[in-house]
Amino acid sequence: MTSRDRSIHRRASDDYRWEGVDELPYKEDDRALFKSITRQVLFSDPQMHGELRYFEVAPGGFSTLERHEHMHAVLILRGRGHCLVGDEVRSIETRDLITVPAMTWHQFRATKGEPLGFLCMVNAQRDKPQLPTADDLKRLKADPTIAAFLDPEG
Amino acid sequence: MTSRDRSIHRRASDDYRWEGVDELPYKEDDRALFKSITRQVLFSDPQMHGELRYFEVAPGGFSTLERHEHMHAVLILRGRGHCLVGDEVRSIETRDLITVPAMTWHQFRATKGEPLGFLCMVNAQRDKPQLPTADDLKRLKADPTIAAFLDPEG
Repeated sequence: MTSRDRSIHRRASDDYRWEGVDELPYKEDDRALFKSITRQVLFSDPQMHGELRYFEVAPGGFSTLERHEHMHAVLILRGRGHCLVGDEVRSIETRDLITVPAMTWHQFRATKGEPLGFLCMVNAQRDKPQLPTADDLKRLKADPTIAAFLDPEG
Repeated sequence: MTSRDRSIHRRASDDYRWEGVDELPYKEDDRALFKSITRQVLFSDPQMHGELRYFEVAPGGFSTLERHEHMHAVLILRGRGHCLVGDEVRSIETRDLITVPAMTWHQFRATKGEPLGFLCMVNAQRDKPQLPTADDLKRLKADPTIAAFLDPEG
């Protein structure tokens, strides 16, 4: 394979679906640890040490509540919402940068009105995410702000 | 330093300048290998194996014509223009993905009407770019399409 063969140009539709990129829908989750989120891997190559993924959360949906040793580098590409990083809940909007440090609980939630789309750069070699135990959730929800974030209908 | 200390949230102004991120203006270049481009490093961390940078080319400006062993993974964030990758000139628009393979000449040019902004993911450890020799330029310009791309006023 020559270098030219690996030259790739992909265009996106207006709804942020890139041609030639698989969209991986997430199953709905019994424990409500995530809801209505899809994933597209935009760049992944044996010669690159990082990967760039695009996640999109439907209005009212949210990403997985998780933590892991690897860092996340996030750029909000469309929409707005809130995120939990560690013990802080923040409002987020298009173009915001969010660094999620190692072993830090995090989740991204879309507003009800529009989808929330974000880029996430990670190391190509990384550990698997850890999900919260019942005790972890209890500890997180002891903070009223986090409890309201995790259960906005509650 | 606790993990929480490394949690970072940065907001951008409407003109894509991120708070707390240095904007590195490029000097103008005698050989006209680049023109009117700035750089902001959005994510760079010892724990991450990739870096994410934002380049912005003013209307009519262009990025450095260069090649190197490391790959580029590019996502157009704003505007439109044209790029040269290898021996192909392509029109580019917001949200396009462009993979620049190893040792492939490449350059990005903004249209006259608006800035062209793009994200570029690279390996944190990478080789220095190589600039074209007079012979390289001569070879590239032997292709009329590339010649017109490199010298649109010519």
